[in-house]
Amino acid sequence: MRQVAIVGIGHTRFGKHADRRLVDLMGEAALAAMSDCELSPGPAAVDQVLAANMGGGIVNHETGIASALASTLNLTPVPAELVENGPASGASAVKLGHAMIAGGMAETVLVVGGEIMKAVSGSRATDFVATLLHPDAEYTVGVTLPAFAGMFTRLYMDRYGLTERQLAAVAVKDHDNALLNPYAHLHKQVTLKDICGSPEAEQKNPLVADPLRLYGVCPVSDGAAAVLLCAADSLRFKALNTHPTVVISGIASATDTHCVQDRLDPLILNAVRNSAERAYRMAELTPEDISFAELHDAFVILELAIAEEIGLFARGTAGEAAIAGETAIDGSIPINPSGGLKAKGHPLGATGVSQIYELVKQLRGEAEPGRQVNNPLHGIAVNFGGFGNNVVTTICSREEP
Amino acid sequence: MRQVAIVGIGHTRFGKHADRRLVDLMGEAALAAMSDCELSPGPAAVDQVLAANMGGGIVNHETGIASALASTLNLTPVPAELVENGPASGASAVKLGHAMIAGGMAETVLVVGGEIMKAVSGSRATDFVATLLHPDAEYTVGVTLPAFAGMFTRLYMDRYGLTERQLAAVAVKDHDNALLNPYAHLHKQVTLKDICGSPEAEQKNPLVADPLRLYGVCPVSDGAAAVLLCAADSLRFKALNTHPTVVISGIASATDTHCVQDRLDPLILNAVRNSAERAYRMAELTPEDISFAELHDAFVILELAIAEEIGLFARGTAGEAAIAGETAIDGSIPINPSGGLKAKGHPLGATGVSQIYELVKQLRGEAEPGRQVNNPLHGIAVNFGGFGNNVVTTICSREEP
Repeated sequence: MRQVAIVGIGHTRFGKHADRRLVDLMGEAALAAMSDCELSPGPAAVDQVLAANMGGGIVNHETGIASALASTLNLTPVPAELVENGPASGASAVKLGHAMIAGGMAETVLVVGGEIMKAVSGSRATDFVATLLHPDAEYTVGVTLPAFAGMFTRLYMDRYGLTERQLAAVAVKDHDNALLNPYAHLHKQVTLKDICGSPEAEQKNPLVADPLRLYGVCPVSDGAAAVLLCAADSLRFKALNTHPTVVISGIASATDTHCVQDRLDPLILNAVRNSAERAYRMAELTPEDISFAELHDAFVILELAIAEEIGLFARGTAGEAAIAGETAIDGSIPINPSGGLKAKGHPLGATGVSQIYELVKQLRGEAEPGRQVNNPLHGIAVNFGGFGNNVVTTICSREEP
Repeated sequence: MRQVAIVGIGHTRFGKHADRRLVDLMGEAALAAMSDCELSPGPAAVDQVLAANMGGGIVNHETGIASALASTLNLTPVPAELVENGPASGASAVKLGHAMIAGGMAETVLVVGGEIMKAVSGSRATDFVATLLHPDAEYTVGVTLPAFAGMFTRLYMDRYGLTERQLAAVAVKDHDNALLNPYAHLHKQVTLKDICGSPEAEQKNPLVADPLRLYGVCPVSDGAAAVLLCAADSLRFKALNTHPTVVISGIASATDTHCVQDRLDPLILNAVRNSAERAYRMAELTPEDISFAELHDAFVILELAIAEEIGLFARGTAGEAAIAGETAIDGSIPINPSGGLKAKGHPLGATGVSQIYELVKQLRGEAEPGRQVNNPLHGIAVNFGGFGNNVVTTICSREEP
C-alpha cells in the first residue's frame, strides 16, 4: 500500500454564505488547497476530484456537484465523484481518496467538502438534518438529532454524574479556540459565568432539548474545506511538498444500527470505537501516542463521549478533564483547537475535510498564535454521521524530515 | 494492483415500486447478489458497502442511505459510503469499490445502486433530473435534459443524414430485448411500422422535443441492482466464485464542461471518449476485442453517438448499422441486450450497476434464452451523467478457467 501525504489544504470562512453558489464556495476552498502547494489548476493538475456534500439536492436543488466543480476549476477531463455519508461525508471522501492512491489508481486526489445550509433555517434546517434518521421508526414519531442529543446527555449525566458546569466548560473552551481561528463561524468569547449557574445565564443559554442548552449545540453554517492528497513515493510529491510533511497514517469507517433504539446501550458509540480501533491498528499507534484531537461536537456532549470512546479518557471522566483544562490548547490532550463544530461551525459536507485540514495545520506548526498545539506528532479526527450510525476516524502524523 | 472479480449479482424488477422504501428495494438487490454467490449476510460478510443513488434526499427525503442499508442488511459495523454522480452514480460506485480492492483496503465490496423515482412524476421528475444542469446558464433559461437530447438529435441528423427510421430501429431492438429480460420495466413489442412512417404511428409516438419522440426516451423507473466485488487472489474468492469467472478488466471515468454551450462541438462526447480510452488502456483491449455493449440510451440517439465515440462504429454510421440489425442479439456487435435504459428502464442510481450486472450475466452465459449473446469474451458498459459531463466506462472480461 502506498503512503499518502496531504500536501495542500484550503478553507473558506465558515458562517453565512447563503448568497454564494455551493460549487463556487467549494471552488474557493479547492483553489486555496492548490495554491497552498503551488499547484495551478488545469486539465492535468490532479488525477481525481472527490466532492463531499449532503444537501446539494435538497437544499440547493443541485446534483452532480463533483462534475460541476471539476468544470468550474478547469480540471476537466479529470475523473470526479461525490461521496455522501451524512455529516461524515467529508472524511468518507478523504477515505476513498486515500484508497485510490494507496491502490495506485491515482497519484493526486483533490478532496473538497462543502455545504450551504443557511438557505434553510429553523425548522427547515432541523427537517433537512433529520433526513438522516429512520423515516418510520424515528423521525415520524418526533425524534430529531437534537432530541437524541438531549436524551443522550441526560442518560450520561445520570450514569456518570456529569454536571451542567462541566458540559458548559466544553463550549467555553471551544469559543476560546475559535476566537483565534480566522475561519471560525462564531467569534465570541464566553465564560462559564455567562452561560451557567444563574437565572441570567440560563436565560442567555436556554434549553433546546432538556438538558441540552443553546451553548451545547453547533450553529447552522455554510462553508467549504479542501485537502490535496498525494502519493508520498511519487515524483509529483517532491514538487508539491512545500510544507513540513504530513501523512495519513490511519483512516477507517464503521457503521452502527440505523435506529438508536436497536443498540444494547445507547451510550456506547460502537461505530466510533470500531472505526478508531481500525485506524489505530492501521497507524500502528495507541491513544497514548495522540498529541491532539478534532472531535465531532455537533453537540458538546459528543466531544466528551467520543474522547472516551477513542481511549483519550476513561469512561465518565472527560467532563472533569474538560473543566480542569486538560483539553485546552495547553492541556495534556488538546481537543478541538479549531473551535470544533460548536464554535468553528458545522457545514455538514465540509466538516470532515475541515477537521483533517486542522490536523495538517497543527502538525505543520502553522496554526495561529495562541491556538498552536505544542509540537504535535499525531492528531486524530472523528467525523460522526447520523446519531453515530456512520463514523470515520482519521489519524495524521508528521513525518520527520 | 490486485485483480477484481465480480462474484455475485442481484437485480430487482425495474418499474413501479413507489410503495417501497428505497433502502428496502436496494436491500432486495443486495440480498440477491449475496445469494448468487452463496454468501449469508452478517457482520463480517463483506469488507465495505458502497451505495449509489442520486435522489434519496430530494425525492425520498432520506440521506445517509449507505449506513441505513448496512444496518438493514445486518452488516454493521461494515464501513459504508454513498457515491453520487448523477445518472452515472452506479458505475462510479463500482469504480471506487474496484479501487478499494485494487489497493488492498478491502477484499470484498458490495455495491448497490437504487432509485425510487415514481414518487415524482411528470414535470416534477423533469425538474428533479434537471438538478444536474447548470442552474444559471442552463436550467433557468428553460433547457432540460430532453431539450438537450432533442437539439443533439437534430444536429446529428443534419450532419450525418440520420433518419427517423434508423432512430426508431434502436427502440424496436431495445423493446425486443427487454421482452426477454424478466427485470425490464417495459415488456411490450413494437415494430418500425407501429412507431414510424405514418400519421397513425406518429400519433402513437408523439414529439417530446423535436425531433425526439416518445419512443426515443427512456421511461421513469424505480429499481435497484447490486454486484459483489472480490479480490481475485484472495482465499474468499475461492469460496465465492461459484459461476464462470468474470473480472473488471478496465474501469475509468472522465468529466466534460458542465455547460454544453462551452463545448467546441456539442456532438463530440469528450467524457465518453476519454473514459473509454482510459478503460481500454487499463484492459489492454481495443474496440475490436469487444463482444457486446451496454450503452446509456436514456435517449436512443445516445446509443448511436456513444457507440461511435467508443469506437464500435465510424462516426455517423451507427444508425445504418442499427437498421441493418448489426446491433441485435445475433448481430456483429450486440448493443443493449438487456433492453437498455430505453426499455429496461432507468432508475438513475441503479443504472450503472445494472449495466455491469448485465455484462456479468452475458459473460457467464446465463442470460435468458433468445437474448444470450453468442460466447462473449469482453463486454463494455458506458454510464453517462448530466448531458455527458461525467461518464464512466467499464470493461468486464470472462476469464478462461
